[in-house]
Amino acid sequence: MKLTPVKGTNEYLPQEALLRDYMENTIADIYRQNGFERIYTPIIEDLENLENSEGGENLSLIFKVLKRGEKLTKAIEAGNLDSLADIGLRYDLTLPLARFYANNRSKLFTPFKCIQIDRAYRAENPQKGRLREFKQCDIDILGSDSADCETEIILVTAKALASLGLGDITVKINDRRLLNAALLHAGFKDSDLPGVCVILDKYDKIGLEGVINLLFEKGFGGEVERLEEIIEKSCSLEFLGGIPGCEDAALQLGEIISSVTELSNIKVEFDFTLVRGQGYYTGTVFEIKSNKYQSSIAGGGRYDNMIGKFIGEKIPAVGFSIGFERIFDILSETGFAMPGVKKRLVLFYDEGKFAKAYKKAEELGGEYRVTLRKKVKKLGKVIKKYEDAGFEEHLILD
Amino acid sequence: MKLTPVKGTNEYLPQEALLRDYMENTIADIYRQNGFERIYTPIIEDLENLENSEGGENLSLIFKVLKRGEKLTKAIEAGNLDSLADIGLRYDLTLPLARFYANNRSKLFTPFKCIQIDRAYRAENPQKGRLREFKQCDIDILGSDSADCETEIILVTAKALASLGLGDITVKINDRRLLNAALLHAGFKDSDLPGVCVILDKYDKIGLEGVINLLFEKGFGGEVERLEEIIEKSCSLEFLGGIPGCEDAALQLGEIISSVTELSNIKVEFDFTLVRGQGYYTGTVFEIKSNKYQSSIAGGGRYDNMIGKFIGEKIPAVGFSIGFERIFDILSETGFAMPGVKKRLVLFYDEGKFAKAYKKAEELGGEYRVTLRKKVKKLGKVIKKYEDAGFEEHLILD
Repeated sequence: MKLTPVKGTNEYLPQEALLRDYMENTIADIYRQNGFERIYTPIIEDLENLENSEGGENLSLIFKVLKRGEKLTKAIEAGNLDSLADIGLRYDLTLPLARFYANNRSKLFTPFKCIQIDRAYRAENPQKGRLREFKQCDIDILGSDSADCETEIILVTAKALASLGLGDITVKINDRRLLNAALLHAGFKDSDLPGVCVILDKYDKIGLEGVINLLFEKGFGGEVERLEEIIEKSCSLEFLGGIPGCEDAALQLGEIISSVTELSNIKVEFDFTLVRGQGYYTGTVFEIKSNKYQSSIAGGGRYDNMIGKFIGEKIPAVGFSIGFERIFDILSETGFAMPGVKKRLVLFYDEGKFAKAYKKAEELGGEYRVTLRKKVKKLGKVIKKYEDAGFEEHLILD
Repeated sequence: MKLTPVKGTNEYLPQEALLRDYMENTIADIYRQNGFERIYTPIIEDLENLENSEGGENLSLIFKVLKRGEKLTKAIEAGNLDSLADIGLRYDLTLPLARFYANNRSKLFTPFKCIQIDRAYRAENPQKGRLREFKQCDIDILGSDSADCETEIILVTAKALASLGLGDITVKINDRRLLNAALLHAGFKDSDLPGVCVILDKYDKIGLEGVINLLFEKGFGGEVERLEEIIEKSCSLEFLGGIPGCEDAALQLGEIISSVTELSNIKVEFDFTLVRGQGYYTGTVFEIKSNKYQSSIAGGGRYDNMIGKFIGEKIPAVGFSIGFERIFDILSETGFAMPGVKKRLVLFYDEGKFAKAYKKAEELGGEYRVTLRKKVKKLGKVIKKYEDAGFEEHLILD
């Protein structure tokens, strides 16, 4: 037997599982408290649905599930690689959400405020922080184009993060419409925009000079100089709002920033260089950084064209995704103390005295989680092992 | 796009998801409170591991995941159906547990008291109560052959069920060793036992006469008459304990029954005809029936040879599995009221007044889960829809 988990997947020991449950339940509780509703969709989806979704590079990372019986025999005879599978493991939670919404629309509210915390699968090359089986943690609002939605999911996501000790954050926000209009204004062509955005997305890492150099390398000229000027003045939403085509987005960003600021202590910054890779974003994009851990811990944006593509009708949508695995790593490494989790006690009893021990455990149950364990030789060594594993107390029954 | 979930899988609407979360968290809390510890293992497992496990018929129901890239091309060129996949979706939680235990043994306690509540997959022909994606809910104790383990998992499982309103139960218990010895004593041969057990397993449905007739049809003679006598006297553990080879098992069953009875109000019955299909059981087998719903809602037993098979060392083990999907169906159909779940309120606000609404929602948050919703025309109709969906209150802000 192979003893390790499948490549790129993790298994979780008791204290890790406890933390993951704590995270998931705490986040779900806060989202539910704020009027979002959790749904569950299957991990396996129709392969055609997956392959026709807007997954970009993720489409090449889909785990496909083999057909069975006669279907499989026929597919092999046909000799076609693409016909061997008809279902696959989902690579994210957005395609299943779109299908779910289309399938259950009459039973759902508009706007539909939705929670999904569940597994997804990608055949990535495994590396630290990149798993083949991982948990995603999303909220989405479907069916409204109001900027109230942005304000709401930013506030609520920040609450969820604060409940996990991640209250010291900065929210960065931008708008794809504003970004595109400004780039066009600088002289880039429509067809240049995706490539320019990929470079601009690196601003955080390589700075203004790095971005400029990369653009020159790509053969751009005057556009780059005009873009440089825009970036230098881009801390000002007023300046950008003055660029033709940017007015609406700038106004809306201003509203969102002032609402979030009015309703919380969260630091919200407009960031003209924030791109958020995904091609499906159509409006606002945002990201949360933990100031303490210098790490991006949540991201999202508005994707008004995606759900509708499946339904044949425009359904505006905006979503925010918490980096569950990233946060699990942070909390594990920093020894996050879970509030309200009872201490553990191991209770040792003599052979033949289980009933006595069980009754004692019931008594202690208000204060402790109690593990019953028959006495063994070398009890001191065993007690040490429980202590090392984080058990706070032990009790030896006569 | 195909709108329905993949054949044999379910998706869950908000109130269904809430109930499933409630069930899972309540059960996990009670098990943890009683010293069991949750672990998580991946949904995908090495295919060889799965295929070499003791899954019986389930092995033919494994969903296999297609190899990728060059590996796949090579496999197809080889033309071998069996080489197209190297991982699969787990068909239960026991094989993953065995692998997990072997892989992490130095970090775990002996006995290891373990909780698993998670999804498994079988390519069954879908029908009511039989899904291709379903949740299993198991506790296991690995590494102890003490009958205290049986007492403990019966008591703790009954507690978990009671917390879901399923307190009116009957536990039936038997022992495979006793069953086998009694059948041999009746004159059946070793090689007859599996077939005879399959028939005996139907006792619940077809009664003594039905069992006898089926055995005669199979060509048995005097053995059947002697078995009939045993069954007729089988309400008495003392009688069975007098049959050679049954003494130890009868004694142990007596102890378990008296311990459980001493420590709870649970009705526990010895049932000589209880088989529990799985071939891997080696000792006690047990089952819980809901008296109210006339339905089997949990089952388990001792399987001392299975874990060891993977590890190359005998590891005794006993497990109890709650029928999560069965109970979900019962609670859904009977409208189980979840204690401690806050009421839902929908709060309607005017365009431009989000901040006011958000502040009001914060105020109401102690008592309600609050959904914010912008006012629309035909508000009465919309309110009706929220009421129909189970929202207890609504509030219209000026």
